[in-house]
Amino acid sequence: MSSGHIRLTSHPHAGGKPAPLRWGAASPRERGPVVGTWTRERNAIGAHSGSYSLYRALAVASGTLDPVHVPDLTDTSPARRIGPHPQWSMPDRIVSMDPYGHMVSDAWGDLLQAGWDVRPTIAVTTARLRMPELDAALTEGRIRADGEIVAENGEVRVTKAAIEPVWHLPGIASRLGVDERALRRSLYEHSGGMFSELVTRTDLEVFLPPIGGTTVYLFGDLDAIGDPARPVACRVHDECNGSDVFGSDICTCRPYLVHGIEICIETAQAGGFGVVAYNRKEGRALGEVTKFLVYNARKRQPGGDRADTYFERTECVAGVQDMRFQILMPDVLHWLGISRIDRLISMSHMKYDAMVEHGIEIGERVPLPEDMVPDDAGVEIDAKKAAGYYSPDPARPHADGRGLDD
Amino acid sequence: MSSGHIRLTSHPHAGGKPAPLRWGAASPRERGPVVGTWTRERNAIGAHSGSYSLYRALAVASGTLDPVHVPDLTDTSPARRIGPHPQWSMPDRIVSMDPYGHMVSDAWGDLLQAGWDVRPTIAVTTARLRMPELDAALTEGRIRADGEIVAENGEVRVTKAAIEPVWHLPGIASRLGVDERALRRSLYEHSGGMFSELVTRTDLEVFLPPIGGTTVYLFGDLDAIGDPARPVACRVHDECNGSDVFGSDICTCRPYLVHGIEICIETAQAGGFGVVAYNRKEGRALGEVTKFLVYNARKRQPGGDRADTYFERTECVAGVQDMRFQILMPDVLHWLGISRIDRLISMSHMKYDAMVEHGIEIGERVPLPEDMVPDDAGVEIDAKKAAGYYSPDPARPHADGRGLDD
Repeated sequence: MSSGHIRLTSHPHAGGKPAPLRWGAASPRERGPVVGTWTRERNAIGAHSGSYSLYRALAVASGTLDPVHVPDLTDTSPARRIGPHPQWSMPDRIVSMDPYGHMVSDAWGDLLQAGWDVRPTIAVTTARLRMPELDAALTEGRIRADGEIVAENGEVRVTKAAIEPVWHLPGIASRLGVDERALRRSLYEHSGGMFSELVTRTDLEVFLPPIGGTTVYLFGDLDAIGDPARPVACRVHDECNGSDVFGSDICTCRPYLVHGIEICIETAQAGGFGVVAYNRKEGRALGEVTKFLVYNARKRQPGGDRADTYFERTECVAGVQDMRFQILMPDVLHWLGISRIDRLISMSHMKYDAMVEHGIEIGERVPLPEDMVPDDAGVEIDAKKAAGYYSPDPARPHADGRGLDD
Repeated sequence: MSSGHIRLTSHPHAGGKPAPLRWGAASPRERGPVVGTWTRERNAIGAHSGSYSLYRALAVASGTLDPVHVPDLTDTSPARRIGPHPQWSMPDRIVSMDPYGHMVSDAWGDLLQAGWDVRPTIAVTTARLRMPELDAALTEGRIRADGEIVAENGEVRVTKAAIEPVWHLPGIASRLGVDERALRRSLYEHSGGMFSELVTRTDLEVFLPPIGGTTVYLFGDLDAIGDPARPVACRVHDECNGSDVFGSDICTCRPYLVHGIEICIETAQAGGFGVVAYNRKEGRALGEVTKFLVYNARKRQPGGDRADTYFERTECVAGVQDMRFQILMPDVLHWLGISRIDRLISMSHMKYDAMVEHGIEIGERVPLPEDMVPDDAGVEIDAKKAAGYYSPDPARPHADGRGLDD
């Protein structure tokens, strides 16, 4: 299994010479592959599959996984073609994912043949979705069965892509407006000393961080992208397990996600294209433990849960209101070749500002219909509107939130 | 902000003397707190909030978060009392979470007063859930409104807890049946060199791994646990974002989750108690990119998608069929004080075996009703039954799966 001694990682070129990598180059050949495996060619800090690398480590430790297993990528290449798009080689357009991450077998097949262990960081497949809310939308006539995008029984055809984060550290530093050396040191120190290579291997510019990635769901004809005559709808959604899966009524997450999907379908059926990007950034990237602590603090504070102290309670516990860093979010839209969104299904000024700042033109903004706001989510929506969220309606304050025992 | 030099982490006691920690001790006072913050008292490898510590690092780097912010935990303590239970101090019963993780303010208030930065790894709150499938169950009479657990409008009252992983490394090694030193080395090497302290700081026994945790949803009266006259229902569910949120029809995940919730409600209404444990182990802990690669390989293989090659395709890509390590899963049940499950809503022999092996008595196993198996999920269910999944019915093979273009 493992060799007897611990492999040192703190010395440049300890394991070989990193494969050349020119971020933002115009073709995969010029760019070169991101190699995140422990091989001679490795040119990235971290490991593939993000957090799940620790389960891989358990599998090796317990003897169920051969540590030198190389994936057999036969038949795994994208089910639909995505790109290349001009944005892939525009400087600074994409810094938090590898635009060529799904093309490994095609772009570097010769290297795979020669024994390199290059792994996809993106996978593209097709699927059919069935959601009770979409069944209802069909019954109520808000969407229609066309036999193509929406089947008679309510199934919705999509292309979807799972995307692992791949951070180009100089690009991330530049996007955040900080010094790269300071960024590397902060990542190392404030993760509790994760990856000493962040500070020792400044020759490695790419980092595979063990954080959740993004899944994009694509509705309609991918060729509609880039055609100015065909509309594009988009919902960028940050994970909220409590609402997205379990329907907790304290926030508007699942209702807005469902509304976004409905508008994506509508837009696709009108000859356009819809995209939902689902980001694993639970509780504004503060994590679910912090989120539940804040719920308790909101509901127990003197005067009870109310809009004017909504963000303050988060800040007391977490030190900030939000850690999602929406400025990294447009990368996935650039990857899809999107430069214009006709219908943005979001009221967030943070998302809107990030898109506009990074060269994406926005047409209409589609708010969440008032009748889709769940019972206890009035506090959230009022607080967000007061903080600058987009709303076409005059502010109509909701009731205060429930207590923990109500 | 940050001091000018990089803090070294590889020397024991570089920052002070770790706070004493006696895992499995009978009281929080004897056990001592897990300190995962970069303070003199730190006694854990890693950082709080798992993966999200990297977003915290971005927030510090960009100047929005004060690096020495200490959470204000006012009003954040559990909304409902959980434990202590006898299992908390039984050797080896709980090794992957901190049973006292929600009690920080109560158990070590004096240390917090003295300036220690001890953070909760568990948060307990209350919520009301609204799911379209539960609305239908109410309309169809499978569950009933009682004004207590289920409201007239279909809202379901729950207590829920978010739990971050806290690994006691000697306990994890023992659970896996491997040498602790080998475990530490594998975790370090196969994560791409994450946390050199895993190998250099053998005096630190606790690790806060940057992986997703567990959320438990509790239905009914918590006092029912431990009373042999009152039934307990349980669904242990491993994350499947594509089905749980988006209703992809290639697997049975959301239908089984919903069925589990329904049975938990039914059991709670019969005077018992129901628990759903939701584990962040996407794609059998292989991650979603690997999962989608496998979907493509399954659907493109000669002969198309079918049950007899279902697990083989996963193994070709990932090297193993599954990395979920169900042997760690019963910890959360021990934390809740559960020693008997009357109705286990799972057909998985891996989950069943793990529970039985770790001292949890199982009554009935509740299979997924045949009419809840989605259109394209027949391949999965047939493959699992052939591999040893529990089923009371004679095997009735489903059709083969769809192609990528169907």
